[in-house]
Amino acid sequence: MVKVTFLKIGYIGATNLIDAILDERASRRDLSVRVISSGCKMDEGEAADAARLAASVPSDLYVVVSPNAGLPGPTAAREILRETGRPIIVVSDEPSRKLAKKLAEQGIGYLIIYADSMIGARRGFLDPVEMALFNSDVIRVLAVTGVLRLVHTEIDRVVAQLEMGEEPQLPQVLVRKERALEHSGLENPYAYAKAMASFEAARRVAVLSTEGCYKVQERERYLPIVAAAHELMRQAALMADQAREMEKANDSVTRVVHFRKGALRRKTKLLGKLER
Amino acid sequence: MVKVTFLKIGYIGATNLIDAILDERASRRDLSVRVISSGCKMDEGEAADAARLAASVPSDLYVVVSPNAGLPGPTAAREILRETGRPIIVVSDEPSRKLAKKLAEQGIGYLIIYADSMIGARRGFLDPVEMALFNSDVIRVLAVTGVLRLVHTEIDRVVAQLEMGEEPQLPQVLVRKERALEHSGLENPYAYAKAMASFEAARRVAVLSTEGCYKVQERERYLPIVAAAHELMRQAALMADQAREMEKANDSVTRVVHFRKGALRRKTKLLGKLER
Amino acid sequence: MVKVTFLKIGYIGATNLIDAILDERASRRDLSVRVISSGCKMDEGEAADAARLAASVPSDLYVVVSPNAGLPGPTAAREILRETGRPIIVVSDEPSRKLAKKLAEQGIGYLIIYADSMIGARRGFLDPVEMALFNSDVIRVLAVTGVLRLVHTEIDRVVAQLEMGEEPQLPQVLVRKERALEHSGLENPYAYAKAMASFEAARRVAVLSTEGCYKVQERERYLPIVAAAHELMRQAALMADQAREMEKANDSVTRVVHFRKGALRRKTKLLGKLER
Amino acid sequence: MVKVTFLKIGYIGATNLIDAILDERASRRDLSVRVISSGCKMDEGEAADAARLAASVPSDLYVVVSPNAGLPGPTAAREILRETGRPIIVVSDEPSRKLAKKLAEQGIGYLIIYADSMIGARRGFLDPVEMALFNSDVIRVLAVTGVLRLVHTEIDRVVAQLEMGEEPQLPQVLVRKERALEHSGLENPYAYAKAMASFEAARRVAVLSTEGCYKVQERERYLPIVAAAHELMRQAALMADQAREMEKANDSVTRVVHFRKGALRRKTKLLGKLER
Amino acid sequence: MVKVTFLKIGYIGATNLIDAILDERASRRDLSVRVISSGCKMDEGEAADAARLAASVPSDLYVVVSPNAGLPGPTAAREILRETGRPIIVVSDEPSRKLAKKLAEQGIGYLIIYADSMIGARRGFLDPVEMALFNSDVIRVLAVTGVLRLVHTEIDRVVAQLEMGEEPQLPQVLVRKERALEHSGLENPYAYAKAMASFEAARRVAVLSTEGCYKVQERERYLPIVAAAHELMRQAALMADQAREMEKANDSVTRVVHFRKGALRRKTKLLGKLER
Amino acid sequence: MVKVTFLKIGYIGATNLIDAILDERASRRDLSVRVISSGCKMDEGEAADAARLAASVPSDLYVVVSPNAGLPGPTAAREILRETGRPIIVVSDEPSRKLAKKLAEQGIGYLIIYADSMIGARRGFLDPVEMALFNSDVIRVLAVTGVLRLVHTEIDRVVAQLEMGEEPQLPQVLVRKERALEHSGLENPYAYAKAMASFEAARRVAVLSTEGCYKVQERERYLPIVAAAHELMRQAALMADQAREMEKANDSVTRVVHFRKGALRRKTKLLGKLER
Repeated sequence: MVKVTFLKIGYIGATNLIDAILDERASRRDLSVRVISSGCKMDEGEAADAARLAASVPSDLYVVVSPNAGLPGPTAAREILRETGRPIIVVSDEPSRKLAKKLAEQGIGYLIIYADSMIGARRGFLDPVEMALFNSDVIRVLAVTGVLRLVHTEIDRVVAQLEMGEEPQLPQVLVRKERALEHSGLENPYAYAKAMASFEAARRVAVLSTEGCYKVQERERYLPIVAAAHELMRQAALMADQAREMEKANDSVTRVVHFRKGALRRKTKLLGKLER
Repeated sequence: MVKVTFLKIGYIGATNLIDAILDERASRRDLSVRVISSGCKMDEGEAADAARLAASVPSDLYVVVSPNAGLPGPTAAREILRETGRPIIVVSDEPSRKLAKKLAEQGIGYLIIYADSMIGARRGFLDPVEMALFNSDVIRVLAVTGVLRLVHTEIDRVVAQLEMGEEPQLPQVLVRKERALEHSGLENPYAYAKAMASFEAARRVAVLSTEGCYKVQERERYLPIVAAAHELMRQAALMADQAREMEKANDSVTRVVHFRKGALRRKTKLLGKLER
Repeated sequence: MVKVTFLKIGYIGATNLIDAILDERASRRDLSVRVISSGCKMDEGEAADAARLAASVPSDLYVVVSPNAGLPGPTAAREILRETGRPIIVVSDEPSRKLAKKLAEQGIGYLIIYADSMIGARRGFLDPVEMALFNSDVIRVLAVTGVLRLVHTEIDRVVAQLEMGEEPQLPQVLVRKERALEHSGLENPYAYAKAMASFEAARRVAVLSTEGCYKVQERERYLPIVAAAHELMRQAALMADQAREMEKANDSVTRVVHFRKGALRRKTKLLGKLER
Repeated sequence: MVKVTFLKIGYIGATNLIDAILDERASRRDLSVRVISSGCKMDEGEAADAARLAASVPSDLYVVVSPNAGLPGPTAAREILRETGRPIIVVSDEPSRKLAKKLAEQGIGYLIIYADSMIGARRGFLDPVEMALFNSDVIRVLAVTGVLRLVHTEIDRVVAQLEMGEEPQLPQVLVRKERALEHSGLENPYAYAKAMASFEAARRVAVLSTEGCYKVQERERYLPIVAAAHELMRQAALMADQAREMEKANDSVTRVVHFRKGALRRKTKLLGKLER
Repeated sequence: MVKVTFLKIGYIGATNLIDAILDERASRRDLSVRVISSGCKMDEGEAADAARLAASVPSDLYVVVSPNAGLPGPTAAREILRETGRPIIVVSDEPSRKLAKKLAEQGIGYLIIYADSMIGARRGFLDPVEMALFNSDVIRVLAVTGVLRLVHTEIDRVVAQLEMGEEPQLPQVLVRKERALEHSGLENPYAYAKAMASFEAARRVAVLSTEGCYKVQERERYLPIVAAAHELMRQAALMADQAREMEKANDSVTRVVHFRKGALRRKTKLLGKLER
Repeated sequence: MVKVTFLKIGYIGATNLIDAILDERASRRDLSVRVISSGCKMDEGEAADAARLAASVPSDLYVVVSPNAGLPGPTAAREILRETGRPIIVVSDEPSRKLAKKLAEQGIGYLIIYADSMIGARRGFLDPVEMALFNSDVIRVLAVTGVLRLVHTEIDRVVAQLEMGEEPQLPQVLVRKERALEHSGLENPYAYAKAMASFEAARRVAVLSTEGCYKVQERERYLPIVAAAHELMRQAALMADQAREMEKANDSVTRVVHFRKGALRRKTKLLGKLER
């Protein structure tokens, strides 16, 4: 049995459910999962403290999920985990692309998700309900556009290698639109195009939210901008939903499920059987 | 500073973001959050192991989130946490209502969320993508119908009591439709009615998913039933979305945000200011 | 020619059009239909009076449509019709399920429709326009989920038996979701699941409307509850609509039409021909 | 107590619920309603037979509802009812406008509803389910655009006159778009415009359905035309729905309810009280 | 190379893009296009002046686009162009149908588009933004219902004849619903029916806008009527959009593209190739 | 009377209707408009030829509308018009931003519209119908987000200066999201945010269409990318539509109309009067 420990430092969309998508029916016998998180906080102190806790958990693989992996908190967390000698995969958002080369040099895997845009974190706009709705939308985009499939497939692959006693080949993926969509399983080309448009709209959200959070200081200007960021993410989610509804109309929704021993099996027709 | 440790055993909708909604902008100086989770698994072994890890984390308050708190895993986890002598709040779904009296007797607080229905956990239907979409929908329902507001308000209250050195009054709430809606902040009565309908539709999902998962054994029958469960949750989420859009049209979306010291302040007009 | 007399006492969704669906183009030569109704009223006096009128109409079959067949009005009406010695079929809503056994013992057929939920009959909420909209929604749900097909097929069968001079086998059907859906003709499994979700949402409406009409007395509480009941029925209708639109997209809408002699013939492709 | 007998010969949209909208909660003490119908059939034999039955029911007022009141069936029915000496109101669709003058001369009231368009009654298209869906859509249009309000208000007025022992002033109304909309209670001018567009679209349906039913003989041509008729009615219903949703968003839905003694009282805010 | 000069006098929906649809990628080597327009104005002075400019442009074919070709401005413009001796095609809206015979006698071709309804040109309603939105909607209707395909196909045919040195056969087409739909390329029969309904709704707009602009003088009456006209066109556009989305769901969108030498080639599957 | 001549070289979204929005009801007495266009073609030869024709038209102001004003065709056209000595305003899309400084130095005004993104001009994707639909969507975005208002206001201002015999101050505007939105007249802040999101989504389209048209050569890759570009523009248009519907729901749609002498007057309530 492979032990995977997720260390979550702060929140991106993929923070939600990333551990769950490895074992959606809690049926795997080859896998045990632990999650350690510092909640929304990601300053160096909180991150390091959570990392030390994670380092104390016997693990075959660490997955570190955070915004911008180059910030002090996530960096400190990685340093602590590196001391365990265990393989590490970083899952993060687009700003982390600058770190990709360095991570590769350190032997750390990465999945940098371009559509997982920053939230509009302005006081006077973001409250717990708005935060939850934004996450709901991001999750939908990540689910339909193939991101979540890519993420679990890559981690599944590493888990299988660890289970076999092999040297794991850690992913080094910048999850851009085409790379994500390859994993979407969308068969109708218009559904595929809608999902791609959804991905790009979601990615564009970051331009608005960073402008609204960091570049504009006048309240009457930044409030509409961060609100526009969330409206755009909502619409990206609706596009993703349309793409999936189109596949439903054709009974061509791809499902890839985990079996007890971690194998993945696929089906498309709802009433059909899982392929061997 | 109050230290709150969330122990998550298996997944319900509220598992997502429950720690995040306490500190949406990571700005609180009165609060430190840790999360320990066993992922999707909730058997006794995994649950107890995760609980021991949680028990080792210095904490002023434990919040245990799981499906059906009466199952062996969550029960074992609670027992371990009780030994710390720290206050405990259970957050769980409707089947846990049977446990409410016992929890009260044990001095354990609870927030039992009726709309947080079980997923359609049938192999051949549920895969990571379907799981994520269901959670996206549940999060939307919980956010709009007032559940998340109620949950963070109750925990905030306990945190404030702990911060003040008072004896915390733990919540004992069965989160039914009217109780939830009181916290929704919805001002338009039709938006309120739509949100109530959303809550009830979401609650009804559990009837379908438990029937599809446990009562019906023929594959050609249970697949449509669990699919219907998810379609109903999707529609509940759309109703919730309509309710919020209606409030947006009136510029009457209520926002309640956390300040540095944990105080909550409210606003409605988007360009307006937070009330004192 | 078989003479069928419908006695309608008060209103459920199926009250609308139940006579019309036997002969949609007024082309049948084997059937003559009469309808007698007391309008919305269903107290014993009105019901009995209408029943006496119906009993005076020469009929080979009576179909009695009313809410809750166990109430005094519908009961009195049935007693009067029983004296004619003609076969009787009761069409009613879910509360009548308690009467099923007794009806069977009396040799009375029944079609108890679970999704045909009570209206939110509160003064201050229900006016003629609101009533019409609710009925519009219920009709859509009954039409798409297979209920109306089941109802006319069962009555058609009895009419055919009467036409042939056979002893009619009266239906004894609790029209639950799966029983209804069998008659929906929906071919796409997601359309089928959406229709099932629609049926269940519609059924759930009764929980809200009975709570709002009978259990809650405070005006500021029951008004949102009955409004939620109607919002839920509206959404159930929208789900039904989506299911049918999905079938349209596949050109797989099933149509079953009545021919002159009462035979039913079927087609699916819009430009295709009726099957023999 | 005033006794109103509805004679329904064949089906238009207003056939549904016309008796129900006089007494939506079955609470009126000043009114007793009977309905006699020949179902879908409207040939002279069936119509006359049903009319004789209606004539045998003690009535203070007759309301005859049918398509095209100039056809032999409805004409024969009227003749029979005229012999009772009781006041008669004809409710019918646009083709009956040609009869208006003659009805006026005969002292018969009329409500000729222009948006209540003919169904696409082609074998190979119309089956019971399609019929029900068309009626669902028509009902929605009639409800939102003010038609049903106008109809019940006019009949209510006559009932009140009869109750008072006055000579009733029978309505002579061609229910065109502006006349209907006056009764819609829509306050937002865009909702009003949408409802007017809905009315006109619904009215346009008749051009398509009569063309498809009577003027075009080639199957491959008339099937798309009658299908287009129904698609247009579906869209008219959706426009009507949008109009009402807009009013809900403003909490300005007008409700006019019947009280025990037949008085009408009005309210707009959902949680408000009925005006005196 | 064939030189086609478009003379645009005032605006109808087809005024937009009519020159563009001949050469969508600016790749044709057999065609050169010029457009001369007088903007919105179409009085005789402006029209004649623009026509003289157009007459001065060396042209093998003139296409005159205007509202009601029978008005003085367009008539004067035609007279001026006739003096060039070049073939002329008139593209106009439904009121021009009265002119068809006369145009035919004069050897002038015509494409009279019934769905290209007049805008609601009332001060107090129509401003530049409202105008643009109306045109956006009309363009969508014309594009999906086959009108634009028919228009460019007919002009393409004439261009090809001119290129070959043949006597051009000018189109004489009243573009009614069936004639348009033949060119829509819609394969799903319900998409076809929706597009037909869209066409008819769009055509109906003219009844409202002419009533609102010319027949009704009271401001409080004509404003809702012209607003209803635009709401109906918006809805017609939405129906057209639904029709195309349905084809997308089936990956059966027909595309007919211009090649360098003006040849048209067709494809349906998005990822498929153009047919020879 | 001021004579404005529009020279259109190739197509952007603003090419449509730019002349029309100056005089939406053809009622201005202070303005005469001419349009000269080379259709879709914008190579140097066609552009120069059209420009010479425009230069021959007596004009007080030239407005040159084209994609990328830096390309040889538009550049040549400008040079020809400059020789007339008349003031020139360039209207173009985002790539023209590089030219802004140079235009300013030459005394040429400019309106560079960032949301007016390039079409997906790939053979095998773009046909006349797809082109028309894309333009329909762009027009909607430009109309609702304030771009068209800004454009006509700026040209109106220059026309007024010319009419007064003043030296015209030519606009020098990069039409970015905030600059556009200022002119949108949207009052509800969520409608404003939706429109801003629409603008940004529309702007993002160019990234996809240029990638699909120029950077990717494999057919199976570029077809989905240009399709995604158009799906994103369709969604941007839907967001714009939602924004306007929200304003309709509040009866707060701003209208600014041209009067006879070119003055602009404003109103908001549909049934209200134009402000002085």
